[in-house]
This record gives sequence, C-alpha cells and structure tokens, in this order.
Amino acid sequence: MATIDTARFLADLNDLRKIGAYKTGVHRPTFSPQDMESRRWLMARMAEIGLEPVLDGIGNVYGRNTGPGPYMLVGSHIESQNYAGWLDGALGVVAGLALARAGLPVDVCAFADEEGHFEGGFLGSRSFIGDLSDDEMDHARSRNDGSPLRDALKAAGLEGVPRITVEKGRHKGYLELHIEQGTSLEGAGQQTGIVTGIVAIWQFRLTIIGQQDHAGGTTMAERKDAGLTAVRLLAAIDETFPLVCGDRTVWTTGSIVLEPGAPSIIPGKAEILFQFRDVDWSTLERLEKHLRALVQESNRRERCTTELSIIRRSIPAICDPAIMTALERSAEQRIPGGWRAMPSGAGHDAQVLAQVMPSAMLFSPSIGGISHHWAEDTKEEDLAVCCEVMGDAVEMFLKSNDYTPPAKA
Amino acid sequence: MATIDTARFLADLNDLRKIGAYKTGVHRPTFSPQDMESRRWLMARMAEIGLEPVLDGIGNVYGRNTGPGPYMLVGSHIESQNYAGWLDGALGVVAGLALARAGLPVDVCAFADEEGHFEGGFLGSRSFIGDLSDDEMDHARSRNDGSPLRDALKAAGLEGVPRITVEKGRHKGYLELHIEQGTSLEGAGQQTGIVTGIVAIWQFRLTIIGQQDHAGGTTMAERKDAGLTAVRLLAAIDETFPLVCGDRTVWTTGSIVLEPGAPSIIPGKAEILFQFRDVDWSTLERLEKHLRALVQESNRRERCTTELSIIRRSIPAICDPAIMTALERSAEQRIPGGWRAMPSGAGHDAQVLAQVMPSAMLFSPSIGGISHHWAEDTKEEDLAVCCEVMGDAVEMFLKSNDYTPPAKA
Repeated sequence: MATIDTARFLADLNDLRKIGAYKTGVHRPTFSPQDMESRRWLMARMAEIGLEPVLDGIGNVYGRNTGPGPYMLVGSHIESQNYAGWLDGALGVVAGLALARAGLPVDVCAFADEEGHFEGGFLGSRSFIGDLSDDEMDHARSRNDGSPLRDALKAAGLEGVPRITVEKGRHKGYLELHIEQGTSLEGAGQQTGIVTGIVAIWQFRLTIIGQQDHAGGTTMAERKDAGLTAVRLLAAIDETFPLVCGDRTVWTTGSIVLEPGAPSIIPGKAEILFQFRDVDWSTLERLEKHLRALVQESNRRERCTTELSIIRRSIPAICDPAIMTALERSAEQRIPGGWRAMPSGAGHDAQVLAQVMPSAMLFSPSIGGISHHWAEDTKEEDLAVCCEVMGDAVEMFLKSNDYTPPAKA
Repeated sequence: MATIDTARFLADLNDLRKIGAYKTGVHRPTFSPQDMESRRWLMARMAEIGLEPVLDGIGNVYGRNTGPGPYMLVGSHIESQNYAGWLDGALGVVAGLALARAGLPVDVCAFADEEGHFEGGFLGSRSFIGDLSDDEMDHARSRNDGSPLRDALKAAGLEGVPRITVEKGRHKGYLELHIEQGTSLEGAGQQTGIVTGIVAIWQFRLTIIGQQDHAGGTTMAERKDAGLTAVRLLAAIDETFPLVCGDRTVWTTGSIVLEPGAPSIIPGKAEILFQFRDVDWSTLERLEKHLRALVQESNRRERCTTELSIIRRSIPAICDPAIMTALERSAEQRIPGGWRAMPSGAGHDAQVLAQVMPSAMLFSPSIGGISHHWAEDTKEEDLAVCCEVMGDAVEMFLKSNDYTPPAKA
C-alpha cells in the first residue's frame, strides 16, 4: 500500500484555497490573475517534488516525472467557476502532487478551462490530446464578457507559448479525483465513489414560433400561442421520456423564455433549453429519436411550429475496467463497504483523456451535494482516504498486466 | 338624424396625430411634453366649439357644455402607449368634439393615463368618479422609469391643481368610441361593433419553489424541479379550463420565468403570470375556484410548492341596454347589417364610468387587428360612419324615456 502524506495533502489544498479566496470558496476564473497565480503556485510545488513543470500555450500546467516508468497521468483542473468551491478541480490536481510526493511514477496535470469560461469547452485537455485547432482558439470568446480567448492568453503572458500534447505510449492510464457534486455518497454514508462512466450531454434548443397578439382582443380559437405549444411539448416529454429512458438517464429543461413576456400579450415566440445525459450511446440515440418524434407530432397537432436545433452532443466515456478493478480492490481494503460504483452525471477532463488512454475517476462525497457555489465542501477525512485509495490503486494498476487499448471514439 | 361634420372630424384626428408623431403612429406617454401639448390642443378645440375647458389635477381635460341638458358624457383618453397608434383613445375624444360641434348636448372628456404608464391604472377616470385617493397618488410610480407620479404631475405643471369629479345627476350616460383592437369586425366585413360589456381581467402570479441542483449530479428521483411543476400545472390549466370557461372567456400565460435559467441547472424557482378575462362575474368566480383547485391538487401531487397570489381582479362592466338599443337602431339605419354586438376583451375608461352612470361603447374596425403598435389604423370611411352612428344614438337616447339607474358595483 502506498504511503501518502495526507497531512501535507490537506495543507496543500488549504494553501491553494487562499488564492482567490471568496467566503469559504474561491473565485479563480480561467486566466484571471488569481488563476495564473494558482498555476505558478502549482509549478513551484511540482518543482519541490522533483517534477519538471511546464506552463503551455493554453494554460495547461504539466509536471513531468523524471523517474522510471511506466507512468500514470493524474490531475484535473485548477481554475474555478465564478465564486465557487475550493475543491472542484483543485482536489484532483493536489492529489496528483500527493501521489508524486509519495514516490509513485505519476505525471501531474492541471488542464485549463475545464469550467468553460471560454467557448468550446475542455480547452486544456482537448489541446493536450491534439483536439484543439489554432482556428478554434482564434474564434473562441469569453462566456463571461465576450472578449476573445487570444486577448486573455496575451494578458496572461501566454501569447506565442507552445502547446504541449500527450506523448504517445508514455502513460498507462489517466486518473482523476473529483468531488461528487451530488448526494449519493453522503446519502449512503460512503467515503468514495468509483466512476463507471461519464455521461454525455446532448443539449438542444427548441424554438417555437407563434403569433404575438393582444390577450383581450384575440379569441381562444384565433390564437397562435407559442407558450402554450411549449407547455404541451414539455408535458409530452415529461409523460413519455420515462418510457424510453435508461436506468440513470437524466433530462432537464433549464430555461423557458416567452416573448415578449408581458401579462396581457399572447407569446409570439418561445425558446426552450432542453438536455438529456446518459453514459450509453444507444440510449442517447433512442432519446434523440424520441424527442424528434415528439416535435414532429407537435408540428402536426399545433398551430405553432417548433424547430429543434442541436447545441452540443458530447461523447460518453466508459471508465477503464482495469483501473476500476484496481480502485475497487484498494477501496475495499482501506474502507470495506465504504465505497460504491457510480456514473458521473457531470462532464470532466477524464472524458477527453479517455479518447487517447485508459481513464478512470474517483469521487469524494460532497456535503449536501452543493456544487458550483462557494459553500461546496467535503470532510477532510474523506479527502484523505480518497487520496490514499487512489495511491494504492495507481500502485496496483501499474504493477498489473492488465492493459486496455485506448478507446478512440 | 344628427348632422356630423365628418370632414372636420377626420381633420381634427389628423391634426392631433401630428403631436408626438412617430412613423405613422404617435408617442405620447402620459404627462410627457407631447401628451401635455395634446391636452392643450384639445382645450383650444373645446373653446372654439363653445365648451368650457378645464385641465384638472390628474391631467383630465373636461369640456363642459353650456347649453341646455340633459347631457351625455362622451370621451376616452388622449395619451398613447409608447410608440403606438394614432387612434387608440384619441378617436373617442375627437368624436366627442364632433358631436358637440354638431350641437348635441354633450360634455367631452379626455381621462388621463388610461394606458397605465403609472401604477394603479385608469387614474383619470377613477379620479373623476371619486375613486382615487391622494394617498394612492403619493405612492404611484411610473411603470416606464419608476419615478413618482407626483414628480411627473409637478413637471407637467399640475401640482396643487384641483381635481374635478362627476356632477351627480348631470349626465344621462357615458359613451366611448374606440378601435376594436381585434379582427372580428374586419373579418366579418362590418363597420361598427356595439359593445355588450367590458371584460374583467383577473391577473394572478403563480410562484413555484423547488430545489436548485446540478442537472448532472441529481437523479430524476431526487429532483425538485420547479419548472416541471410549472409545466404540469399549465398543462392541467390547458386541459381543464375549456370545461369550465364561458363562451368568450380568454386565458393567457404571458410569462414563465425559470431561475436561474441555465441549461445545466435544475430550476429552483418558477414564476408564472396567468390571467383570464370574462364579462360575467359568476364565470370569473368559477374560474378562480377552478384555478385554486388545480393549485391545491398540484401541491398534493408535486414535490414543489405552488403559491397563488392575486395581482388584480377588475370588475366587469355590462353596457347599458338603453344606450345599446339606441346604438343598434342608429347603426341599422346608417349601415344595415354592417354592425354586430360584441364584448370588449380589453379594458376601457367606460368600465370605470359604468360604476356611476349608464355607459356604453362603440368599436371601429382595426386593420389587421393591429394594436399598441405604431402601424395601428382604421379606414377613414369607417371612422366617419362610427361617428355618425354615435351622433344619431346620442340624439335618440337623450330623447328617450329609457333610463337605467347607475349600477354601483
């Protein structure tokens, strides 16, 4: 079993927490002064341990192990959502430091902008696997203020800095520790979750066009009420999605906007943001087919026309069985019965890395399931034991002969 | 039959149209310089005809007839919605001038702020019938910019000016000509509508409280999705309101707001603006009872709690049968078959006046039903014939012995 200095691990996490501190959380949006300070802090810690730190042209911090391989890549992201939690991302990066400090053959990485402050999403990990073009970087803008990504990189001192990409064959796998962002572990009184797969998010926009009219002068029979068509379509989704979904599918209507949105005006337009998530590709395809059938039926019945457009369709990632096995054995040894296998409902850098190497994830509990909010937290004993399970698993996996070839999607 | 100078009537309308002209419409918000200029223009026209004009402390312009009675009160409002039509309101006031010019014993009035630029609604007509307190005036604010009504009155030179109220027993009735703001007349190829009643608007706010959560980390079974409860409640309204409504009831969901309204966050709160309109009090009461039952059932079934609050419940006005009879006979004489009886789906000053004297309304067609938009319009021949029918009806009604006592609500 690996010997992790958990006190030092927790001390590092608490040091990092001071950079961009906001209430009990942090505010470190990508490429902000606070974010760049945290990247420099990370490079200093890497150097102390003997890793060779590099800050690349997209802001990735990569700490290369100079000892003998085979190597494991361990990390996550270091920037935060706006005014959000201290552990989201930071936990996985600092766990990587702890493993390297314990002498395990790991490279440590902090991928830039997992939180999507800029358009595109997963800029850092996508750049690392060779899936981010210069052209996309030229056009990406901040989702906070619309300013170009290139301006932010320049201000952060990263203009012209080369980007590093994965060295083929160097890593036997990728492992990421992250907070759960839900209540499954807390509810079950368990200390760690072994992720079976990372859901894909299929995000759609439903645009309904009706006829804006005076709510007093227009009879019910004359109306073309876009809001009413929206309600009927969403009610049909609510009634029929449970009949075609998977065991762990989730679907969410995050936004409904009626225009003009006045009490005495019949809405002439409605816009709905609707998404579903699942780890299984055939389930995702079945749900999209079903959604399209509901829209078609709505267009047959209703006076208002609905148009479905795709905002994004990400690829689900299945976690590597061999790494999962090592995690399960390690967890059962450290905390018998105190772990569970579970899917990840949120997106993570691991789903990008899974495209080029065997990848897996470990979840720590989230107190009250609070996420993307400064009140996010996890008990220190849970953080420590997760880091220990991870160390054991890396040791076990690197020694094993199990090897799953990269699942290139 | 009364002899109306319809050419002069149309010329007056076109003169007034020049004040605050915007494209083919006008922009004369209440107490704006343009609005005050239109009030002064009106007083000058009144004086030319021999009416005694008064501008009172709420901005009402009242032209008192100095000839022998019994008198009819004829008018409407003169301010406009923002960047709206040239006839909405102005038509009824200028028709009053035309009747007075023809020697009919009418007082002419332009009631301030029928369009509700300030909180409260119907400030001018309510003040005229003694239903507007100084206290309410102290607290009312602009719906456009939040500034106090008192400031606007001061800027318009109306601070300290006394308000005039109806002289009991002076008027045998009130009559208002207005554009239809719908397509019923145009669709039927008819030139005038005799209003049977003015609908009441019962406006509600439905506030639904759920639990804001991450759309990935929260299973369907755990969710308290305020948006979903909103959709189910609105679907229940859509399915069951047709079973309890009246022949001409209309109901409208003008706004649905989900908070925070982000694609990957389960809405923690939903707010719905819902209204219904009818002329029949028992229908209105039945619909509110039904709505409350739907909310109660929703609160029994759903995980999110819905609270129903009343924004306003206005009183429906039934038009006076004797004035209606005079209007019907006059219309049938001038334009046989070219008229219809119809309810008013929108609110008008006549519904306020109906609380203190027999009141009725006449509608002119609206081209394409366009209303509250600068493109609003009516054919000149339709305007002229409506004014003539009105003149005949006032003559007929004032000579008749029919008298309906005031329906004090």
